[in-house]
Amino acid sequence: MTVPKVLAFDVFGTVVDWRSGIARDAAPFLAEIGRGDLDPHVFADEWRGLYQPAMEECRSGRRPYTRLDILNRETLDQLLRRHGIDPAAIGDDRLDDLAFAWRRLDPWPDAVEGLVRLKAHVPIVTLSNGNIALTMAMARRAGLPWDAILGAEATGIYKPLRDSYLGTADILGIAPSDLCLVAAHHSDLAAARAAGLMTAYVDRPMEYGGARAPDADFEQSWDYRADTITGLAGLIF
Amino acid sequence: MTVPKVLAFDVFGTVVDWRSGIARDAAPFLAEIGRGDLDPHVFADEWRGLYQPAMEECRSGRRPYTRLDILNRETLDQLLRRHGIDPAAIGDDRLDDLAFAWRRLDPWPDAVEGLVRLKAHVPIVTLSNGNIALTMAMARRAGLPWDAILGAEATGIYKPLRDSYLGTADILGIAPSDLCLVAAHHSDLAAARAAGLMTAYVDRPMEYGGARAPDADFEQSWDYRADTITGLAGLIF
Repeated sequence: MTVPKVLAFDVFGTVVDWRSGIARDAAPFLAEIGRGDLDPHVFADEWRGLYQPAMEECRSGRRPYTRLDILNRETLDQLLRRHGIDPAAIGDDRLDDLAFAWRRLDPWPDAVEGLVRLKAHVPIVTLSNGNIALTMAMARRAGLPWDAILGAEATGIYKPLRDSYLGTADILGIAPSDLCLVAAHHSDLAAARAAGLMTAYVDRPMEYGGARAPDADFEQSWDYRADTITGLAGLIF
Repeated sequence: MTVPKVLAFDVFGTVVDWRSGIARDAAPFLAEIGRGDLDPHVFADEWRGLYQPAMEECRSGRRPYTRLDILNRETLDQLLRRHGIDPAAIGDDRLDDLAFAWRRLDPWPDAVEGLVRLKAHVPIVTLSNGNIALTMAMARRAGLPWDAILGAEATGIYKPLRDSYLGTADILGIAPSDLCLVAAHHSDLAAARAAGLMTAYVDRPMEYGGARAPDADFEQSWDYRADTITGLAGLIF
């Protein structure tokens, strides 16, 4: 198989563990507001569940491209209201800080070492729905050595719309077939393949705390398949 | 003085030495095509001289934003014709390779160490007219540890238009007054200051081989002034 010229990574779930990170930051928040009855892991799942509908407003054209930092803050307010909590009673500073929990996620244990190994061979970029400031802040905290932050904000288009993948290859000045998406999500990989990209699946069985991934049915025979990013480095190079 | 939240760097001339790098790659090219009579440093100066008029087509709106990689290839053809050389007789591969000399420039001796020191304190990003693929390729070769590649392509606007500076701050999610432009060019700093940014001048007396900079008259009293990027790190932190 041709070796990819650039590896483009999905980030949430593939490189970082959003569920544990959000639960870690939500727990003291929920305790502070007297809602220690809410399970912070369920809170994380519910918040993540509001992510696709919020992006869908932008994908559909009903709303112009809006950065994920802003969507995360809006969906936090939505989630709190759903639990009978009035965001206005809490105050913007505290809510802004919790919305930025998405910038403070920890990498899976293999991620940094795997990225460093891959980066020695080809450029590694993000092809994430995270906006640039979010992805940059996360990278600085977690030590993720991206060569460039691309994806949704660079193209102005949310995955899995076709032009988010094609636009990323275009910015890189390479053919879509020379770009490989690395993701833990079959739906993302299916869209990337439909756009002509190479595909690498990394299995993250704990992304949903051990529960079945919502897109498990989209599985195909991907170009590469590994259990870790270090394992992927060993497969490709 | 308030410490900047993010440092945004001009690249050509400020971080890398374009004149020596272009001359180094032009010399064997000129020899190969039997034009060893042309001085490669003068060739570099002439090529650089065609840079502002090419970007001006985009700034003025006569042409949509077009990546610098493409403008560099076009101005190379222009320059060759000016010297009576027919680009069609040379072939695209060789010309594309020479146009990519702008991706292979060496950093000034203090640049990598200075950037590493600054990056320990705040994010360091590019605010260059170089496109993303060019800037990324240069960074990988030269070891420039950018946190993100912003500037012209991220905003779709060439410096020194005001919105190239404001758009960069906006992507970063910070106020323009929290962003500091670092540049060796007074004209760039003047435009950044007019847009509300902080300013840091780094002196590069050898950028034009010791000749006076074309924008020397734009000098003002900048917020920071240093002889090297390592010196700047000592001044700010």
